[in-house]
Formats: sequence, structure tokens, C-alpha cells
Amino acid sequence: MPEIIPQIPKGFRDFLPEKLIHRQRIIETIRRCFESFGFEPLETPTLEFAKTLEGKYGEEGEKLIYKFEDQGGRKLALRYDLTIPLSRVMGMYPELVKPFKCYQISPVWRADKPQKGRFREFWQCDVDIVGTRSVLADAEIVNIISTVLKRLGFEKFTIRINNRKLLNGIVLWAGIEEKRTAGFLRSLDKLSQSDSQIVQQELKDKGFDETSISRFFQLLEKSKEQKAFFIYLKEILSSIPSAMEGICELEELSQCLNSFEIPLDNFVFDLSLARGLDYYTGLIHETVVEQPKIGSITGGGRYDKLIGLFSGSELPATGASFGLERIFLVMEELSMLPPLSTSIQVLFVLFKNGLLEKILHLATRLRSLGINTEVYLQDDRLKKQLAYANSKGIPWVIILGPDELKRGKLVLRNMVRGDQEEIPLDRVEEVIRRIEAPSPDRS
Amino acid sequence: MPEIIPQIPKGFRDFLPEKLIHRQRIIETIRRCFESFGFEPLETPTLEFAKTLEGKYGEEGEKLIYKFEDQGGRKLALRYDLTIPLSRVMGMYPELVKPFKCYQISPVWRADKPQKGRFREFWQCDVDIVGTRSVLADAEIVNIISTVLKRLGFEKFTIRINNRKLLNGIVLWAGIEEKRTAGFLRSLDKLSQSDSQIVQQELKDKGFDETSISRFFQLLEKSKEQKAFFIYLKEILSSIPSAMEGICELEELSQCLNSFEIPLDNFVFDLSLARGLDYYTGLIHETVVEQPKIGSITGGGRYDKLIGLFSGSELPATGASFGLERIFLVMEELSMLPPLSTSIQVLFVLFKNGLLEKILHLATRLRSLGINTEVYLQDDRLKKQLAYANSKGIPWVIILGPDELKRGKLVLRNMVRGDQEEIPLDRVEEVIRRIEAPSPDRS
Repeated sequence: MPEIIPQIPKGFRDFLPEKLIHRQRIIETIRRCFESFGFEPLETPTLEFAKTLEGKYGEEGEKLIYKFEDQGGRKLALRYDLTIPLSRVMGMYPELVKPFKCYQISPVWRADKPQKGRFREFWQCDVDIVGTRSVLADAEIVNIISTVLKRLGFEKFTIRINNRKLLNGIVLWAGIEEKRTAGFLRSLDKLSQSDSQIVQQELKDKGFDETSISRFFQLLEKSKEQKAFFIYLKEILSSIPSAMEGICELEELSQCLNSFEIPLDNFVFDLSLARGLDYYTGLIHETVVEQPKIGSITGGGRYDKLIGLFSGSELPATGASFGLERIFLVMEELSMLPPLSTSIQVLFVLFKNGLLEKILHLATRLRSLGINTEVYLQDDRLKKQLAYANSKGIPWVIILGPDELKRGKLVLRNMVRGDQEEIPLDRVEEVIRRIEAPSPDRS
Repeated sequence: MPEIIPQIPKGFRDFLPEKLIHRQRIIETIRRCFESFGFEPLETPTLEFAKTLEGKYGEEGEKLIYKFEDQGGRKLALRYDLTIPLSRVMGMYPELVKPFKCYQISPVWRADKPQKGRFREFWQCDVDIVGTRSVLADAEIVNIISTVLKRLGFEKFTIRINNRKLLNGIVLWAGIEEKRTAGFLRSLDKLSQSDSQIVQQELKDKGFDETSISRFFQLLEKSKEQKAFFIYLKEILSSIPSAMEGICELEELSQCLNSFEIPLDNFVFDLSLARGLDYYTGLIHETVVEQPKIGSITGGGRYDKLIGLFSGSELPATGASFGLERIFLVMEELSMLPPLSTSIQVLFVLFKNGLLEKILHLATRLRSLGINTEVYLQDDRLKKQLAYANSKGIPWVIILGPDELKRGKLVLRNMVRGDQEEIPLDRVEEVIRRIEAPSPDRS
């Protein structure tokens, strides 16, 4: 028995190489895509002052913040999302040139009940544009969502799009008091997981007027059938300025999305989309896939008021967050991950007795030519060394023993096909030509 | 005044793009180098059970662990280093194929007093080989240190090398009780920062025998002058088996380092190197640079007993840890970082009125060809847009206004040189040829 039982807390994970290699590639694809749009990296600390995070995530979220006091009695909290830290950064460094386009790919922590696809430590990939009200900025965010998902290999996905100004307007139009809008929308947010009847019942239980509720839900239903969606809404909501503003923004967005050549299959305007967080002020969006059932894989929108809490003056912003765990889970279940379990491309079998120097020299050469090259480090029998390569999934093995050295050649063995060939020692480039990088990403 | 003062706890940092771009490149270089040697990634959770970490880092270290109770009363701790989590992983997943060669690049946390180059949240880059006693494995670790530092652009650095078996033997030879060896070595570890006299005084204060102390330090002094270092030590320590074993390992290591073609300038056998942690059992090493004065930039060694605490049976291991903060600081002070402040390669000036579609189309094209391309998102005046590019350090700007479109050309402007040329719209490849990636790393 070990002295210390090796274990980790529930909801936390070790990533072993086989899985992590795929996660790293997904992150790398997302990162490159963000950078290709001119976004730059940002990294905030794991620990923030508790008061920076408190009061931002609603009653439910508040309970999930990991908080503690440090050795000096300071009240600290583990990062809960990446949006509040970004907002704090914008307040703290007013010298940052605007528009400020940045991304952050980092873990966040929530003391939530762990379940399938939900962990206490999980990664978010956020991309944000701070300092402009331009609808083109919102459109660029939607374009990035579409571009990232396509680069990852997603074909069927739907970016659901709505606008908080429009939603607020409809709530008002339905006859609900303005100050109760946030509460109404928080229930509406459950529509993606629950039946419409259940949500309407919850609203009634919360004390919202029945006529207003049914007026609101009737509009939702009718709008779905409309081909001329915007024209229909404009007619009905012409007396509500906020709604009209929201519709105009959606129309402009729609034009931009066409310019970006985003296929019509990949986005939909959907009045029933509410998003849970209170701080959104304009466009909101989330991405869903049909299979597997897992909720949204991205979410985001415009939040023009939030940064003002930290900066003192309003600083408009818009962004999106990609949920790495769900994206990984979907890619795994849809067999979108390449059949690869190692980043090692070739293993040199070890022979001692004067051969070591030659082997180490050639291995160094291969590495300098960009090939991930492992040298077996123990004097084990050939059979054991080959078994090691097999168990790790290493595709190529090089054998350079006393016989091979005499002939001035090395043996290059393909462990998948089981065949091998001899290559002259002075033509290492031939080895490279055989050993192709497992994917263009790693080359 | 903002509602919430934007601030972060002392010893923690925000990384804004200008600095983070360089950090990311350094990490990427280290990562690629590790992978080129056949090491695979590992990631452990930020939070471990407190009892996993407790009692591993000595009395001083123990106080610096960030600990707290979560909502369920579990005693958790923030990761303090990457070696204990790796050891816990090896105990938890006995199915991992050995030798297990892995790396982890992650932040760790210590509630230390912040000062120059020392933070409460900082990054370590660890590389380890678990499951072999082969000295070749130790040599490979030293080779990786040398290779990484060279790839980062370091020329002058010294890898100081010693062996705990040898040190233990010398301590014994000097006449000190075996059970007090760890305490003796912990004081000896201060030799790199303090004068020999001060360390000797500390040892006296700790109650070590004066004759033994002077015997030990005399050997240190004399060994420095020896050209035939190993022969000299073998003569003197022939009666101490542990010392003889340590010397043999160092001799074998020396041969391997020659096979790896590591220049003699870059490593030195140094009896005065002790390393602070108790768990080392064989080879130990650290890397120092002459300028600036900052302590070691890497450290590590063999730890054959540590993993056994978690696995129940002994599992030998050897590794090294790179200190990212110090490496960054040295590279900054020695002007080793390229003069680059953005990853954006080109900015498209925005013109609306029918031109937007053409601009967005071309930008998409450039991105698909691997160029990081930003489109300015607001309808500002040309002058303001160019000023934005300048303030960000974006090297190229593309202007495609109504006049240019009429001529079927775009204007490509070099913001550094201040000159510009026209390129036909149907020959975007010409643009790529001009805009070279800022460094081969990013291409």
C-alpha cells in the first residue's frame, strides 16, 4: 500500500497524453483562428480579489465561486469566467489602444455538481472586441465562431442569434413592467432545456401576468413561421423604440453575415434565445449542434455596460466564449478526432557497445529536421523495445545495430504495416520523406 | 470613479498582449523541443487535495502552500510545483507504459514575498522520465536543458552538475552522522547565494562538528583545482561505497554528454551544488547565467524514492524544471526578444458604401493563406485608422477605397518604412510575398 492514496478531488481531471494531444490541437486551432483575425492574447491571474467577482453572476452563480482567505487575510477567489477579468483589465489599463481585440484561453473554476460534460475545472476560449459599438464587430464575432467551428471540422451547427434590445421591447410590448424584464428573461433562458409550457408555468408562479405571458409566447410562435421576419416584427413593434433599434441591428448584422459568406444553414434568428447572464445589452448568440444533445458549445453577445463598473465610463464590448469541454466531447462522440495517440514519430532502438554515439548523433539530426524522435533509454532486448513502440502507438522504429552499421545502413520499420527497408546512413533525408508528420498541424 | 476599483492581489500579474506574445513564443519553443525528444504532454489539476502536497517541500515551503476548504469541507491546495502532481499521477495510473516521458508547462502558486523575478503565481516547464535508472536518461535531461536554451538563443550558460550519492558520501567521509545529512545539505544549498564563511558559520550554529565542516569544505576547495576530477575523488573516497557509486554515475554521464556533443563550456561538475529539496537521490543539476544575477534558470535531478510514496513500490525518475519567469527576465535584459509588439500582420482600412463586401472577402482570403489580418471595424477617418495601426505596431496596411477599386488594385502600405505600392486585386499572392511572417515561428 502506498503511504499516500493517490487521488484528486471530484470534478477535477488529469489529462494524460493520449487525450491531451487532441485537446492541445483543438486549442491550437482555435488560437490560430483568433490570431488570423487580428486578435491578440491576454492572460489574467487565476486568483482575483473576491470583490471583483462578487455580484456579477446572479444568485445561483454566486454560490459556485471558489473563495478563500490567503495567509495575509486577503479575500481571494478563483477565476469564474473570463469576461469579468477582461472587464477588470480594461478598467485597470486605460492606456490600452481601442478597439482592443483580444482572446484568452484559460481554465475557470465553479463549485458545481459534476456531471457528464460538466466539471469544476474547465477551459473557456474567449474572444472579445472592446471599444466599439459597430455592428460589424458583432458580425466579426459571429464570423469567428463559424470559422473556428469549420476549421475544427464541424459541418452541422446552428448559431442562434437574438438581440436583448428587441427582447426587452417585446417584454414591454407584452405588458410586463420594465424593471421585471431581467427576471422574465432568466426564466425564458430555460426554453432551450425545457418545454414552453413548463417555462410559462414558471413565469406564472413568479407572478407575471397571464395575458402578458401568452401575448409574449404567441409572438414567439408566430415569428417562427414568418419568411419576412424583420418586416413582420417591425409592423407589430413599431411603437416600441427599443425593439425597433434591436431589429435594425439584427438587419445590419444579417447583411454583414452575408458579406462574410456565412452559409444560411449555419445561423438563425431566434426570438426565444435569451441567454442567462444579466449583463448583455444588445446582440446575443449561442451555437448548438443536433447530435449529441449537450447544450450550447459557444455563447456570447454584446455587453456595453459591464466594463463601466471597473472603468467609470461606458466602454462598449462584444464577444464570444467557446466551451472547450463540450467541443471536445462532441468531436469525440462524432469521431472527429484523428486516430492518433502519440506525438512521437520515430523510436530509435538502443544498442550500446560503441553504437550509442552514432545513434545519438542521428537522433539529434532527425530532431533538427523537425521529427519528434525518441531514443529508447535502457539496454533492453530488441523485442521489448519494439513492444514499447507498439504499446505507445509510435508509427516508426529505426534499428541501427552492429550489422547495420557494418553495411552503412539503418533499418526503418513501419510498426503499423509491419514492413521495413534499409536506408544508407548518409541519406537521412530519405527517412524524413518516409516519416510524414501525422498531421499538417504538427509539421 | 468606477463602482469597483480595478486591482489584482500583489504577486499576481496580468499579461497584456505585447509581453504575452513573447512569453507564448518562449513556451512554444520549449514545448516543441520537449516533443522533438519524444516527450508527451501531461496536465494535472490546479487544485490537489492538501494532503497530497503536505510534508513534501520542507518546513519553509510548507508555509507557502495556498490551502483552503471548499464548499463541501474538503481541504484543497493550489499546485505548488509540478513534481508532486506527476508523482501522484504515476501512483494513480499504474497502467501508464514505462519509461513514461512527459512534460508539463503550467502555473504554480506560492504565498511567497514578491520581489524582482519572484511572483506568487508563476510558470514552470517540467520534463521528466519515469521508470528507468539508466544514466542515459539523466544525460538526456541535461541534453534537453542545453538544447532548449540554445534554441531560445542562449549562448553563455553553465549547467552545474553534482550527485547526491557522492555528496552524501563526502558528508559521511567528513565525519557527519548519516541522519543529519539532509540538514547539512540544506545549508550547503545556500552557497550559491552566500559566502562560504557564512554557510560554515550556519553549520556551526546548527551544531555540526567544526573539524567535519572544515574537512568537507577543504575537499570542495581542492576538487576545484583538479583536472583529473574523478580520479582525484576516487582516490580520496575509495572507502565510501555511496561516494564511489556517485562518481561512477558522473563518469558515465560525462561520456553521454560527450556523445550528445554538448560543448564543454556549457556544463561543469561542481561538488558545491546541493539543491534545496530533500527528495533527490542521484544526479542533481541547475543552470546559471553570468548576467544578469538572478539565480538558477533551471533545476532538477534524479528522485528515485518520491513516487513510491504514491505508488507503493519504488519507481525511479529523473527530470528538470525550467523557470519561465527568470528565463523571460534574462532574455528581456539581454535584449534576446525580437522587436515585435503584435501578432497582427496587416490591417485592412475600412470603407463602407459597397466596398465592405470586397474588403471582407479579401481579408478572408488572406487569413486562409495564413496571414493574421485585422479589418478595422469602425467608419473612422483614414488618418485615425492609420494612427491605430501605428500605435499597435502593425507593419502593413491595405487600402482599398473607391479609387483603388476602379483601377482594380489595392494599396499595400509599409508602416515602418512609410512607402506603398499598388497590387492588382486578382494577385493577392503578391501581398503575401511582401508580408513576410515576423518570424519563422509564426509562419
